Amino acid sequence: MQIAIAQLNYTVGDLEGNASKIIHAIKEAKAQGAELVLFSELAICGYPPRDILFYEEFIDRCEAAIEKITAATQGIAVLLGAPMRNPQVPGKPLFNSAYFIADKKVEKVIHKTLLPTYDVFDEHRYFEENKIFEIVTYKGKRLAITICEDLWNLDQQNPLYRHCPMEELNQLDPDMMLNIAASPFDFKHAADRKRVLSANARTYQLPIYYCNQVGAQTELIFDGGSLVMNAAGDLLEELPYFEESIRLVQHEKIGTIQEALPEAALVHDALVVGIRDYFHKMGFKKAILGLSGGVDSALVMVLAVRALGAENVHALLLPSAYSSDHSLSDARDLANNLGCSYDEVPIQSTFDSFQSTLSPFFKDLPFGLAEENLQARTRGVLLMAFSNKFGYILLNTTNKSEAAVGYGTLYGDMCGGLAVLGDVYKTQVYAVCDWINRETEVIPKNILTKAPSAELRPGQKDSDSLPEYALLDSLLEEYIEGENGPEALLEKGFDKALVERVLRMVNNNEWKRFQAAPILRVTGKAFGYGRRMPVVGRIF
Amino acid sequence: MQIAIAQLNYTVGDLEGNASKIIHAIKEAKAQGAELVLFSELAICGYPPRDILFYEEFIDRCEAAIEKITAATQGIAVLLGAPMRNPQVPGKPLFNSAYFIADKKVEKVIHKTLLPTYDVFDEHRYFEENKIFEIVTYKGKRLAITICEDLWNLDQQNPLYRHCPMEELNQLDPDMMLNIAASPFDFKHAADRKRVLSANARTYQLPIYYCNQVGAQTELIFDGGSLVMNAAGDLLEELPYFEESIRLVQHEKIGTIQEALPEAALVHDALVVGIRDYFHKMGFKKAILGLSGGVDSALVMVLAVRALGAENVHALLLPSAYSSDHSLSDARDLANNLGCSYDEVPIQSTFDSFQSTLSPFFKDLPFGLAEENLQARTRGVLLMAFSNKFGYILLNTTNKSEAAVGYGTLYGDMCGGLAVLGDVYKTQVYAVCDWINRETEVIPKNILTKAPSAELRPGQKDSDSLPEYALLDSLLEEYIEGENGPEALLEKGFDKALVERVLRMVNNNEWKRFQAAPILRVTGKAFGYGRRMPVVGRIF
Repeated sequence: MQIAIAQLNYTVGDLEGNASKIIHAIKEAKAQGAELVLFSELAICGYPPRDILFYEEFIDRCEAAIEKITAATQGIAVLLGAPMRNPQVPGKPLFNSAYFIADKKVEKVIHKTLLPTYDVFDEHRYFEENKIFEIVTYKGKRLAITICEDLWNLDQQNPLYRHCPMEELNQLDPDMMLNIAASPFDFKHAADRKRVLSANARTYQLPIYYCNQVGAQTELIFDGGSLVMNAAGDLLEELPYFEESIRLVQHEKIGTIQEALPEAALVHDALVVGIRDYFHKMGFKKAILGLSGGVDSALVMVLAVRALGAENVHALLLPSAYSSDHSLSDARDLANNLGCSYDEVPIQSTFDSFQSTLSPFFKDLPFGLAEENLQARTRGVLLMAFSNKFGYILLNTTNKSEAAVGYGTLYGDMCGGLAVLGDVYKTQVYAVCDWINRETEVIPKNILTKAPSAELRPGQKDSDSLPEYALLDSLLEEYIEGENGPEALLEKGFDKALVERVLRMVNNNEWKRFQAAPILRVTGKAFGYGRRMPVVGRIF
Repeated sequence: MQIAIAQLNYTVGDLEGNASKIIHAIKEAKAQGAELVLFSELAICGYPPRDILFYEEFIDRCEAAIEKITAATQGIAVLLGAPMRNPQVPGKPLFNSAYFIADKKVEKVIHKTLLPTYDVFDEHRYFEENKIFEIVTYKGKRLAITICEDLWNLDQQNPLYRHCPMEELNQLDPDMMLNIAASPFDFKHAADRKRVLSANARTYQLPIYYCNQVGAQTELIFDGGSLVMNAAGDLLEELPYFEESIRLVQHEKIGTIQEALPEAALVHDALVVGIRDYFHKMGFKKAILGLSGGVDSALVMVLAVRALGAENVHALLLPSAYSSDHSLSDARDLANNLGCSYDEVPIQSTFDSFQSTLSPFFKDLPFGLAEENLQARTRGVLLMAFSNKFGYILLNTTNKSEAAVGYGTLYGDMCGGLAVLGDVYKTQVYAVCDWINRETEVIPKNILTKAPSAELRPGQKDSDSLPEYALLDSLLEEYIEGENGPEALLEKGFDKALVERVLRMVNNNEWKRFQAAPILRVTGKAFGYGRRMPVVGRIF
């Protein structure tokens, strides 16, 4: 049987747009000679639709879109992810389903069995789990159909292990496995995915066709990388990463495995897609950001230029009396390297005005946090004024190390519609910059070699307030991604005073992160939907 | 058997503090003559502990706290909510459990069967559901023990209906039902709760002892109202609302039912608790807010004074050239009525400074949204400067109508650590003010009678940009709480143009609400954890 995989970039909730895209892909697959074409999990509405699913009308509209697509399947079969109503009470009102449609008729609907409800996933919030196991027969082939997580369950030591529905399906003597997915990127995930799919193929001695979503939905980035393996777990096809593709699977010839990119390159590519889709799907074109001369804003600027084009990225240089000369010159050099426009907007007179307004109340209290934050907030207000006046979207440049310890000013440098680096530790920020500079110096070298500083008081350096980033980041990763508590961190060899200091900073800043912009997710545990900590209370 | 109910206010994650409180309550119950004392769901760690539960060490510490409590149960039995490890794989790593401890020994642990995973609840994220039904026998009585949601399942037409574990437990011939809960307040919920518990008592012909948590955990407010009913569903005991209480149940005498307060009074009481516990549990004493002369900030000020004391609430009056005379005089009158300190901090010179800094770039573009937002943001920066300098926590005064349609300035009037009115529609804001003024004029009458205005340009009124609030709020409630889509709203008689306009505003402002402060929840559907909409995408 000739099978095509349609790896597409959907927009959550845009049922008409998604249906058009799907119908176009069906035609394309037919033209390539496909007898069956696979679309990803919840393709009809994009993944994750979240609480729009609670609206009955939204489900009605999904059904109408499925009807329209069904009418476009003459002479071809389609496997399509969509929500379906669960008629049974008690039970959640929906299933997360795979519609098998052939020749203008819905032949069978298969439901997802394993509903991820951890990290960024909330599927038990919406869906009832499947308990009926059936094979779909088409053109003499017996198809075992599963949805995403249904195949993610081989390691019985994994706390997320569940009884895999393939065990039941395999008893029905299938000829192949089809899996439609919406599996978000993190920089370690693509390798895991290949391992899991290969293990499935070998365990059940069946070829597997895997169709993933591509493109970003707010904070979640989907990398595509759909693939086909034979029953021995050898790779037959691998669709591109971070790009749409409609491809007829070549069965006979074993494809070459795409070389895995370095982590920094993966993060780079993912962030570019994350920015691009945020803007395109919101209907925006132009970005603005504050360029400080530091490494974070430099990296965001390069990524934004690659996502949106240099003509759509505008920088503000916002110097104060505490800005060093190189801050301005480095920022200008970068903007010139990239061919971006920029304006220089000094903050001193407004900062002075704030201080003189406040002086009857602050009297002779010493310069401190309030004055540091005033500068950051004056910059935030100026950036937002440009945003409001000219229709730019402000990109936030906070990195994950800063977001973790609360080293940033709420309503100041925490402003912005999208936090590009909020899941990238400072050490990884440098690694991505090095990747960008691997052939030519895009980011001026001085930006990468000078000591990080917020420049909110004379001679300030990040290292005055924070541990060295290499040490800080390794501790943060063990605490946040690794979910190791304080005792476990001591056992891993971290210093007690350091653990107490850093955990106190992380835990005491939940209130600040609660008001942060959406963060592009590139690790297995990003701040935001995937990490839900109490704002008030004691954490450790 | 003599049974006491301990309705306590826990702090999420504060295991030592919660354990001390529980041990103290055990002594008190013993002193009152109790043979058994009930504590609420997850009492050991407070509800909801959220993702702290993923830390193994946190569970270890819960176990240590349970041991400490167990040692304090000589001569008495205790029913205590706590997480317990699930040794079985596959399965979620924890149960949401009720420990039955008697005379220094854990006699039995019963697990929760029905795990709410909707609205603000994420229990499938953490817990495995119970499948074993057992009775606990103590002093010759057979106890059917359930946890919160386990009893919320009588109406088979309700989409949330689940097979109730009492059906299994009832076959084991119990003498009574005990339910430990963490059931958050909304202003319609207390009445529902009595109905559900009474129906349970009558269905199973068993007396029921119900123990709820009290106090606020960030956005969730728990109202207490623990109660006891006989097998006929008559109320025997009702513990106070919004207050801690340890009470020995009097079986013989049928108590009088507390008269239900008007909705506005319930909302008032809940918000006072919400503010008080946010501050107390964060270790803060002093609040600041911007007093505009409008109704929202007036209400927040009264609530803050009632929660924290007049001496701990400071107001800033932040007039601009567009402020009307009555704005200042009304604000002064209110502060004087309440006995609060205030400062007048004019924003004009800083606003002018921003404008002159921006004039080389804005040139002769007309005054517009950018300039309106500049004023709101200048106020936000000044309030935050006071907050940083003097250790005040800024209270946000945005109401639910504004939050819904995005009528507010991000990083301006959306600043603040806690959004007091973010779940209170504008019409209900007036109702709560009327309740406050029912005997004496606390809030100056002029504040309640003048037309609402943001005063960001000359002669501006809310009604220039928004439908009348009575109409707007009824539409918003049907869309947000009622989850009615656009077609359903037309069927309910709303005008098509209005529906399109309002839904567009609501749906296009998810990005803004994403960065809002935590909102005290007083309805069945508040913005925040309970309503998870995509930021990017089409909603309707």
